[in-house]
Amino acid sequence: MSSPSTGPVVRVPFNELRALLQSIFERHCCSAAVAAVLAHNCASAQRDGAHSHGVFRIPGYVSTLASGWVDGRAEPQVTDLAPAYLRVDAKGGFAQPALAAARPLLVEKARTAGIAVLAIHNSHHFAALWPDVEPFADEGLVALSVVNSMTCVVPHGARKPLFGTNPIAFAAPCAGHDPIVFDMATSAMAHGDVQIAARAGERLPPGMGVDAEGQPSTDPKAILEGGALLPFGGHKGSALSMMVELLAAALTGGNFSWEFDWSGHPGAKTPWTGQLIIVIDPSKAEGERFALRSRELVEQMQAAGLTRMPGERRYREREVAGREGVALSEREWGELRGLAG
Amino acid sequence: MSSPSTGPVVRVPFNELRALLQSIFERHCCSAAVAAVLAHNCASAQRDGAHSHGVFRIPGYVSTLASGWVDGRAEPQVTDLAPAYLRVDAKGGFAQPALAAARPLLVEKARTAGIAVLAIHNSHHFAALWPDVEPFADEGLVALSVVNSMTCVVPHGARKPLFGTNPIAFAAPCAGHDPIVFDMATSAMAHGDVQIAARAGERLPPGMGVDAEGQPSTDPKAILEGGALLPFGGHKGSALSMMVELLAAALTGGNFSWEFDWSGHPGAKTPWTGQLIIVIDPSKAEGERFALRSRELVEQMQAAGLTRMPGERRYREREVAGREGVALSEREWGELRGLAG
Repeated sequence: MSSPSTGPVVRVPFNELRALLQSIFERHCCSAAVAAVLAHNCASAQRDGAHSHGVFRIPGYVSTLASGWVDGRAEPQVTDLAPAYLRVDAKGGFAQPALAAARPLLVEKARTAGIAVLAIHNSHHFAALWPDVEPFADEGLVALSVVNSMTCVVPHGARKPLFGTNPIAFAAPCAGHDPIVFDMATSAMAHGDVQIAARAGERLPPGMGVDAEGQPSTDPKAILEGGALLPFGGHKGSALSMMVELLAAALTGGNFSWEFDWSGHPGAKTPWTGQLIIVIDPSKAEGERFALRSRELVEQMQAAGLTRMPGERRYREREVAGREGVALSEREWGELRGLAG
Repeated sequence: MSSPSTGPVVRVPFNELRALLQSIFERHCCSAAVAAVLAHNCASAQRDGAHSHGVFRIPGYVSTLASGWVDGRAEPQVTDLAPAYLRVDAKGGFAQPALAAARPLLVEKARTAGIAVLAIHNSHHFAALWPDVEPFADEGLVALSVVNSMTCVVPHGARKPLFGTNPIAFAAPCAGHDPIVFDMATSAMAHGDVQIAARAGERLPPGMGVDAEGQPSTDPKAILEGGALLPFGGHKGSALSMMVELLAAALTGGNFSWEFDWSGHPGAKTPWTGQLIIVIDPSKAEGERFALRSRELVEQMQAAGLTRMPGERRYREREVAGREGVALSEREWGELRGLAG
């Protein structure tokens, strides 16, 4: 699916886009419940200008579902392991319905115990990570999540790719403001952004990846076809990526980024791994004060000259989309309608 | 205090060094309990070759204690807030005795609830962060800690310094191995390493910091005197540093890195902030399997060509020090004996 920056753009009301995506997911082997969660997630990314995780992903979802690699009708099984520990077996389905199934109990545990952890395994995560954490901040909670993905990153100091792009997302409430939210691949660049650059025929900045011979390359195709990404920030980003493997896979019982074999499922695109979410109730120590302190931090960052806070671009795009509709290219819109049948 | 790489080196048994440091702390306004914790911490850093947090720090501790900025006799107050949430008011003393006071209950909570959080505020942290997390991994637990420090890092995209070096430390058990441990400043370089380079008259690699005019500089003195450090990894390291301010200060009730005013305490060196520690019991979901999976990760990283795991250099230095004694320069040893009186 082409980038919305190419060709004429249409603006579609959010609910119309979401409904179309839901019908696509339902038409391609998803239960109504799973389709609703994925459609909301994907439409939200498109609405917020997070194009690498918006409708750009739909062909990958469809080919994956068609390949039988992921179960679009899976019913996640939630297990209450301890006062602050929940586990979900996603049963080979997507991670987002697994989170949705466990979410009410996770919030209840965080509010009672002060902190709680949700370990998801046997799950496929093919979306942005910020939609998983932002809603906790909307409820006054602090959330941190990590998910591992598929081998495409060379650990710092190593010769061969091993880690996934392994993102870390964080969300915290902020008084009188949208929540403070970031979502960062621990690779130098997100995989979806490399794919978008490859389709657009653009070069990447130096330092993002290597080609099949392990030599530095700015060609996104060379990185995608036999090459690999580098971690962001050298050995530090690499250590964080390793931590994500430990928390999202080893701790949850999910696969490491190199462990799954989808060779028997041509068209499969979704990494079959695990995800960890930690939720903290800041009111336990600081009452209502946390969000005010968070606000102070934002004001000080602005006073230091920062013109854009993490997550701010998404909120701005969201506001425009609320007034004018969600932007996508005419070609994308046509392709989506074709997929909905 | 000079670096151990300069001049003749002496090797001192760990317990002898620790006892000498304890007597220095006791002679400089610390209670026996606080002195014991700090001496063990500082001697451990020196033993493990973490020189920027070893005996190099002693003059800073002494001048800070002499200035009345920190209370070396503080008795931390532990409050049990919720089934998985503990808070400690360090009472203007050091963070390490506060952690020591809360540690048994924190471990008990993590083992019962599956995860637990310790929020320390009104505390001074002047040491490495890995000694705070490594012992949890020795007990089979996973630990993550963040501490904010003092304004010396320019947020990515800003004009003026605001954040501290704000380290993140992580520890996880690994079957048949020392724990996997890392401790990274979210600045491009740790403050102590800049100080060591300045004393040694060495230049820094590019990209570490800026001078007083905000221009890139490789002169450690220009960075320390009116200049500032940069975050590691551009906007991503900067977002992590922001997260550390939120978790270590806003969430705990501690000061942000720019909030304390030590101008009335000449000689004061220790940031008066907060610290957060999250401890997870991996056996809740995965039984004994976590440490085995952790071991698999290490083996895969080695197979990918990684020759040194995070924390490995420390274990190697520790082993040598166990056989031959802890290395420090003759000059340092003489200075320490002088301070002990």
